[in-house]
Amino acid sequence: MAHEKDGAVSEQGPRTLEGWFVLHDFRRVRYDRWRALSSSEQHTAIEQLQELTRRHQAVDAARRGSFGLFATAGHKADFLFLHLRPKLEDLIEVERALDQTLAGSVLTRGPSFVSVVELSNYVVARSEKPDPQRQQAVQARLFPALPRKSHVCFYPMNKRRCEGANWYLLPLEQRRALMRQHGMSGKKFLDRVTQLVSGAIGLDDWEWGVTLFADDPLVFKHVVTSMRFDEVSARYAEFGPFYVGHRIPPDSL
Amino acid sequence: MAHEKDGAVSEQGPRTLEGWFVLHDFRRVRYDRWRALSSSEQHTAIEQLQELTRRHQAVDAARRGSFGLFATAGHKADFLFLHLRPKLEDLIEVERALDQTLAGSVLTRGPSFVSVVELSNYVVARSEKPDPQRQQAVQARLFPALPRKSHVCFYPMNKRRCEGANWYLLPLEQRRALMRQHGMSGKKFLDRVTQLVSGAIGLDDWEWGVTLFADDPLVFKHVVTSMRFDEVSARYAEFGPFYVGHRIPPDSL
Amino acid sequence: MAHEKDGAVSEQGPRTLEGWFVLHDFRRVRYDRWRALSSSEQHTAIEQLQELTRRHQAVDAARRGSFGLFATAGHKADFLFLHLRPKLEDLIEVERALDQTLAGSVLTRGPSFVSVVELSNYVVARSEKPDPQRQQAVQARLFPALPRKSHVCFYPMNKRRCEGANWYLLPLEQRRALMRQHGMSGKKFLDRVTQLVSGAIGLDDWEWGVTLFADDPLVFKHVVTSMRFDEVSARYAEFGPFYVGHRIPPDSL
Amino acid sequence: MAHEKDGAVSEQGPRTLEGWFVLHDFRRVRYDRWRALSSSEQHTAIEQLQELTRRHQAVDAARRGSFGLFATAGHKADFLFLHLRPKLEDLIEVERALDQTLAGSVLTRGPSFVSVVELSNYVVARSEKPDPQRQQAVQARLFPALPRKSHVCFYPMNKRRCEGANWYLLPLEQRRALMRQHGMSGKKFLDRVTQLVSGAIGLDDWEWGVTLFADDPLVFKHVVTSMRFDEVSARYAEFGPFYVGHRIPPDSL
Amino acid sequence: MAHEKDGAVSEQGPRTLEGWFVLHDFRRVRYDRWRALSSSEQHTAIEQLQELTRRHQAVDAARRGSFGLFATAGHKADFLFLHLRPKLEDLIEVERALDQTLAGSVLTRGPSFVSVVELSNYVVARSEKPDPQRQQAVQARLFPALPRKSHVCFYPMNKRRCEGANWYLLPLEQRRALMRQHGMSGKKFLDRVTQLVSGAIGLDDWEWGVTLFADDPLVFKHVVTSMRFDEVSARYAEFGPFYVGHRIPPDSL
Repeated sequence: MAHEKDGAVSEQGPRTLEGWFVLHDFRRVRYDRWRALSSSEQHTAIEQLQELTRRHQAVDAARRGSFGLFATAGHKADFLFLHLRPKLEDLIEVERALDQTLAGSVLTRGPSFVSVVELSNYVVARSEKPDPQRQQAVQARLFPALPRKSHVCFYPMNKRRCEGANWYLLPLEQRRALMRQHGMSGKKFLDRVTQLVSGAIGLDDWEWGVTLFADDPLVFKHVVTSMRFDEVSARYAEFGPFYVGHRIPPDSL
Repeated sequence: MAHEKDGAVSEQGPRTLEGWFVLHDFRRVRYDRWRALSSSEQHTAIEQLQELTRRHQAVDAARRGSFGLFATAGHKADFLFLHLRPKLEDLIEVERALDQTLAGSVLTRGPSFVSVVELSNYVVARSEKPDPQRQQAVQARLFPALPRKSHVCFYPMNKRRCEGANWYLLPLEQRRALMRQHGMSGKKFLDRVTQLVSGAIGLDDWEWGVTLFADDPLVFKHVVTSMRFDEVSARYAEFGPFYVGHRIPPDSL
Repeated sequence: MAHEKDGAVSEQGPRTLEGWFVLHDFRRVRYDRWRALSSSEQHTAIEQLQELTRRHQAVDAARRGSFGLFATAGHKADFLFLHLRPKLEDLIEVERALDQTLAGSVLTRGPSFVSVVELSNYVVARSEKPDPQRQQAVQARLFPALPRKSHVCFYPMNKRRCEGANWYLLPLEQRRALMRQHGMSGKKFLDRVTQLVSGAIGLDDWEWGVTLFADDPLVFKHVVTSMRFDEVSARYAEFGPFYVGHRIPPDSL
Repeated sequence: MAHEKDGAVSEQGPRTLEGWFVLHDFRRVRYDRWRALSSSEQHTAIEQLQELTRRHQAVDAARRGSFGLFATAGHKADFLFLHLRPKLEDLIEVERALDQTLAGSVLTRGPSFVSVVELSNYVVARSEKPDPQRQQAVQARLFPALPRKSHVCFYPMNKRRCEGANWYLLPLEQRRALMRQHGMSGKKFLDRVTQLVSGAIGLDDWEWGVTLFADDPLVFKHVVTSMRFDEVSARYAEFGPFYVGHRIPPDSL
Repeated sequence: MAHEKDGAVSEQGPRTLEGWFVLHDFRRVRYDRWRALSSSEQHTAIEQLQELTRRHQAVDAARRGSFGLFATAGHKADFLFLHLRPKLEDLIEVERALDQTLAGSVLTRGPSFVSVVELSNYVVARSEKPDPQRQQAVQARLFPALPRKSHVCFYPMNKRRCEGANWYLLPLEQRRALMRQHGMSGKKFLDRVTQLVSGAIGLDDWEWGVTLFADDPLVFKHVVTSMRFDEVSARYAEFGPFYVGHRIPPDSL
């Protein structure tokens, strides 16, 4: 069930719904450490890692969370372990479970991002009366199974608070209008890309994380480019680092 | 007794009261070093750490300071040792006491923040005549026992000094009005979150540290989001990194 | 064949054509690790590296991608392995193929940049009817053989989104006019420098990468200086780090 | 004798007097290296360090420079070795003398700051005719014995050169008036804090270093807060990192 | 002979003359590695280093380049190897020649800066007719022998491209007037400081490097301070890190 707390309700702030907590756990491979392991240690490391990912997949299969594993391009990271779980504590636990294995001594921590799946009433209007079908759709977005698309793109972002472009001083109606235009712009890509927005205000250094899934990585370039021309991005968005990769079967590590 | 120095009194600056000094001592686990210890060394490391945290808890119990231990999410840190103590020297001592143990070779230093519990006359008006009950409440806030809530959130912040948004050039009355509105906004969360504000001007790189305690980590997201729409945050606040975690019993390390 | 997706088409965004994916894989030499290798290990490392670069050169020769190897100046990197390949996955594979060799333990990762060869309709107008010759020229630019010039210069860049200088809020026609003036300015250097522009929006931290090839490294200084006085660079460009080097035969490593 | 060079005289720049060169040499303890030393090596390390600090104290006692040793709070540094010496070369020598001992392998370099004691005619007007008493006071400020107060605070700073707040474009008279107001503001703290201002333009990354000495570290908070409301700080100052610590006897290391 | 290419000529850009390429190769000492060498290895390391610097001095003596060695203050670097050479490739070669020796394992890479000696027609007007004496003076500035002064100061810088202060949008005549005023300001120091300006647009992260030589390091403070009040610096200059040191005989290392 969604966390239907009224905590975020103020005259100005958007009403949000939160679902599973999300950990983007990027890892770098220490090949020097791998080479320093004996072949029996390497064997153990692989077995531990497979055991671990099997457990994450079981959580995914049981719909008690979701899990995806990706190989990422460039020097910022080699792999992304993407976890969705009911509790913040779960994220801390899965992160350390890897660190504590021999495999974790080879797959050392790169960047990470801690957030929670978020729907806001910019996009999801509060229904006047209960609508079971709509309710179910909202639940599916708050507690999603990660899509099986082949490629992933992740970036964190903020809304600006500058002189002349201060998102947090705009009236709610104007923010809503800008976000809807932004949503429209994204809709053209609906069949090619799946988007997961997670909120991180009070949890991590950026205000939101955006995770995109597509079968063609060029779609990431097209959708992000297209949306950058929307007024809300052009004027109010600050973007962090971008990561791109492709899904790999956990036992291929 | 509170440090009732008049040092901070100027025509423009707020009058502040200061209580205990505060050290946010974030630590990262070096699992490679842990694995390199013999099992007898591991045993020693654990015993030393338990001895150390027992001493911190004794200080807390005797009300000669306060202590909390938290597991934190993401790559920025693994643990937060949170110390409140009467003297700056005490903070340096507790920090090094850990470094000097074998456990400290595994729990290496991550980020830190040095500050002092602060109440300002933005929020606490100076009473005209002594009011014992009010006096006691102020003392309890300056020398607090850390609340036993399950989760913690920490972030440092500044007030802006830009063209068009310079906090330090606003008249005192305007700053007071903005801070009171901000306080009101926070009050809606009073039953769900406990806030500890500590001042760091002249002590560390940011001007304030904010430490929040709640039983539900989503409350951190809601309260920080809500307050970000207040004019004082929207226009004048600069935020540093955010850390989030949950309380752990010291002997579970 | 070019990726002729219409994904990037919006009222405001430019229409782009994409070709090969590009990896700028900068490496730093760990001489301490090299010295720690036995002479037979050093021999193995060299053989592995030569085998690897032979494979990259074979890809280049077969026109299934392109490859260049460069020695770079200064502390930011020692070598640049420049790969053009049909798929994002190919980039990840070539990057790791090096890491997994003994040579990779000496040639550790420095900075990198992930992008895709890009032509935009700022410069390439969409032809009304098919024009085989023009079509071929476009293909040659999307899937280029790296020029055999002796020197290389690489830098990433963004277009600004500031108050008073927001590229993404300019009308398409104005952007087109600015880009054409910029192109004119570059044309004076056409005989001395070859330019490869690759797009990275949604793929890496900067929006574009610019790779220049010339037989005289002073040309890099002249062309970049000259273009910096164009309005589009003077007003809208943000530049990342600059790297400069010279081509080396792969077997000279 | 003060360096009474006229070099800094221009129509706009302030006339400055310079005294001793200053090195803020922050050090971090590598406890892992300490533990790796044999007990006889530890003994040697301690003896070397004591011998070194005795030499620094002898220089201080002979008034051929000044020296202070401080334990600092937080992760940025563990100790501050503060040296005042007649020549820049002396600073380089004392820095390396520590590095070259076994103790230096444990007390590794943290941040540093290179500057020279500075008095400017913003505050020190040039006397029309010689005034021996005043002359002596100036000498005492240019070649000071570090005060024996128990606590230290250090931060580097710049004056802004922004649109709308460009210190270097203000007329000299306006800068002088602002600096005098600032001086007044500081005077209220005269009995509680001693200030050492050193100039670093052309020597290090910030324009000035400010070192404060007091017997109560809360005074640092009060004085820096109070002065931040002065127009010169509020509008023109940029502050670097802040370090705070307490004096320790050199043989307690 | 100077590179008299017309490459940098545009309507707006200044005409520049380029001379030798310049490498500022800052190094840090790894004392831990030094101590780990056997005494015979230390002996070898010293001999290799002396052999290397002798070769650099021979290049200097033969006027096929220039070379200076300096000890620098503070934690950013310990030594500066300053090389002027005819080709970019030469810089890469001298940098690696040091890395490849045993001494290079101790003198590890710190920051670096790649540039080329530059004269611009802001300061050097193009003579209408050949003037052999003037020609010779220009050659001496493009291919200089490093002055034998005892101290060095280095910093990189940019010209701003902000709203309200965009150097690259100023008309050529205005830039020329500002640069001449700047030159005048510097002339007062002509007998005390020698300046080497090198251009790095297209070569390194900053647009220019400024290297100053003087017999008294206070002169660096005075000249940089004085010039900072010129409109061109006050309004348009951005400064990188500053390094200061003194010349040492290569065999004293």
